[in-house]
Amino acid sequence: MAQHDAVEVIAAKRDRHALSDSQIDWVIDAYTRGDVADEQMSALAMAVLLNGMTREEIARWTSAMIASGERLDFSSLSRPTADKHSTGGVGDKITLPLAPLVAACGVAVPQLSGRGLGHTGGTLDKLESVAGWQAALSNEEMLAQLEDVGAVICAAGSGLAPADKKLYALRDVTGTVEAIPLIASSIMSKKIAEGTGVLVLDVKVGSGAFMKDVASASELASTMVALGQDAGVHTVALLTDMGTPLGLTAGNALEVRESVEVLAGGGPADVVELTLALAREMLAGAGRDDVDPADVLASGRAMDAWNAMIRAQHGDPDAPLPSARETYVVSAPASGVLTRLDALAVGTAAWRLGAGRARKEDPVQAGAGVEWHARPGDAVTEGEPLLTLHTDEPARFERALEALEGGWEVGAEGAEVVKQDLVIDRIG
Amino acid sequence: MAQHDAVEVIAAKRDRHALSDSQIDWVIDAYTRGDVADEQMSALAMAVLLNGMTREEIARWTSAMIASGERLDFSSLSRPTADKHSTGGVGDKITLPLAPLVAACGVAVPQLSGRGLGHTGGTLDKLESVAGWQAALSNEEMLAQLEDVGAVICAAGSGLAPADKKLYALRDVTGTVEAIPLIASSIMSKKIAEGTGVLVLDVKVGSGAFMKDVASASELASTMVALGQDAGVHTVALLTDMGTPLGLTAGNALEVRESVEVLAGGGPADVVELTLALAREMLAGAGRDDVDPADVLASGRAMDAWNAMIRAQHGDPDAPLPSARETYVVSAPASGVLTRLDALAVGTAAWRLGAGRARKEDPVQAGAGVEWHARPGDAVTEGEPLLTLHTDEPARFERALEALEGGWEVGAEGAEVVKQDLVIDRIG
Repeated sequence: MAQHDAVEVIAAKRDRHALSDSQIDWVIDAYTRGDVADEQMSALAMAVLLNGMTREEIARWTSAMIASGERLDFSSLSRPTADKHSTGGVGDKITLPLAPLVAACGVAVPQLSGRGLGHTGGTLDKLESVAGWQAALSNEEMLAQLEDVGAVICAAGSGLAPADKKLYALRDVTGTVEAIPLIASSIMSKKIAEGTGVLVLDVKVGSGAFMKDVASASELASTMVALGQDAGVHTVALLTDMGTPLGLTAGNALEVRESVEVLAGGGPADVVELTLALAREMLAGAGRDDVDPADVLASGRAMDAWNAMIRAQHGDPDAPLPSARETYVVSAPASGVLTRLDALAVGTAAWRLGAGRARKEDPVQAGAGVEWHARPGDAVTEGEPLLTLHTDEPARFERALEALEGGWEVGAEGAEVVKQDLVIDRIG
Repeated sequence: MAQHDAVEVIAAKRDRHALSDSQIDWVIDAYTRGDVADEQMSALAMAVLLNGMTREEIARWTSAMIASGERLDFSSLSRPTADKHSTGGVGDKITLPLAPLVAACGVAVPQLSGRGLGHTGGTLDKLESVAGWQAALSNEEMLAQLEDVGAVICAAGSGLAPADKKLYALRDVTGTVEAIPLIASSIMSKKIAEGTGVLVLDVKVGSGAFMKDVASASELASTMVALGQDAGVHTVALLTDMGTPLGLTAGNALEVRESVEVLAGGGPADVVELTLALAREMLAGAGRDDVDPADVLASGRAMDAWNAMIRAQHGDPDAPLPSARETYVVSAPASGVLTRLDALAVGTAAWRLGAGRARKEDPVQAGAGVEWHARPGDAVTEGEPLLTLHTDEPARFERALEALEGGWEVGAEGAEVVKQDLVIDRIG
């Protein structure tokens, strides 16, 4: 590998030049080995955030991060593979019903997931509210479960894109998370190294998402789609609304309960709609658009796959879900219609109630979170419950209520409600 | 002190906001204590470099760095104090004749100096080529020497602006040296903490300087002058040419020799001119514009002060200066006139010959460096020496000659030579 110097690479990006392939390969490798120091990589990350990267640079950066670790290989499986990745939102439990549903449709789902940080929840945190369920699997266990059950949701092993793991932790403490080149390469390096054949990206837009506007979400989505396609992964992205939280709950056990309702044929309409839209994209990518996931959901076979998936990872799908020790109800102040419910407000409240963590090492409460009893456009009645807050520690109610202040609005009966389409755009 | 969070402060500057006084005080204090990590400060430094700072932010940042350490107090001295700071150039030995000259004019010069890094020389490295001379003085020794001799050139103690020491070392390895707010606050925090009553800044412009053009040098100069004046230090800046190196030598002992020539009433005209120009500014600032430094130089009293200053720091001004073991002569390829001699080329060659260091911990060679036997505009004769290279290690000649390639030009007799004024502007 060609020799470079950290200051030379930083200065090039600082001065708005495109980094060469050789500079990128060197800096990622040297950072992984510890020869480029954290303080050098954070200066480079800030320069990337402020000065950007070309598509070519992002592609090379992604390849270099993939090359820093191992790659999984699912070619021995008897069925095609498809994965989904969400950029993170509030009440976004879609992976939970989606993975067993797609598995029940005959496509294997190798879902390597993360934990929540800040106001967005993490899939592993949610599943850990199921008694006995374990997130850690070896590569061999993962492959065996994919063959037997068809769906795995587990923690990414430490061998996959170690450069990204190190860089992600660094970005978190240096104000350099919000850089599209770094977000795109972080997500795509893990997904390409994971070895899925099809990838469907759910890029969230709105107050509860990283990307607050459609333009930046579109840019992130098209960057990631190009990276996936260049790497031979069939990749499409849906831009979906995260101005309003998904479903009726945000919190770990609360969202598992709602997901099981969807698998049982019920559940909130928006969760069902998005689950089916993403399932159709995954099936189409895998060449199985002959199967209608709505039929499979109705048949109960997705629920069977859920039960098998939970049991394969030592969980008990029949055990009662944990609930919080304390609740606090916010009642509707008047009769009328809920005109607005803000995803960031709800997500922050759920986080402060104990559903999320401020630091990586913090524990989460399985039962904590927020339930809302109406969605924008629904009628509400004065004095009836509008929101229920759940936590084990009642001292947390106050700051959660502060987060919700101004985050919802009840209008007079017949008040106009601006409805945002759930699926805003499709890229790929 | 108000509590802040490193990511909050970084994100504010990243998003082009002005930092509040409270954010600046906190981040400098927390960085000095180690509560803000190097990787966080380097991301902030890059954001400052790319997004800038207002005058108010720079002033507060400077005050916070001063507050991180001790301040010297020269109010007990029987005479006024004046100091000079150069932003660094090639062949810039001016401090050596200037400090004793101004002392001989009745104004005390407390010159805290640094070592060279990269292609620009360091005053302490130069003086260390004098046998026995010692750079380290306690505050008490410094004060006593200022009273007795009137001039001190010594290393800054570790108690002065420790935040700047830490940040300077960090900037050096993270590509964040070239930020005007950080350069200005670094220089001025040390000079204000040092306690001088008058400060004359020599801001270099041209290929051999940090600032390559007059616009950025002017911005740096006016930023520093405002910082000094706000802190109650009488501050002026001269913008001076560093497209051509100063005098006829670049190297440690070589420059001491040239400085002693100036003190003896000879020496290159440009070195004499700049020494007198800076001396006049220092004297005027200290209320002593009744003294003409040209007279004092001619009288030999500046040489007496030099000898006393060197002896006070255990040096022997009469000992022969070290010379390099090997020399290499570049002869004029034709008769005519030297039309151009580039400061960066000469500085880089001197550095590669061993006069400077690549890393802080490297040693320097006392005898190494470059002599040029003509200045732009001077006649040269084919086959006569144009440049003499000095080093203890002949293996270094090759890369030094590479640095000089294209760095000088001999034109036909009568060829036009674009002459740049030595003093380009005065700000203050």
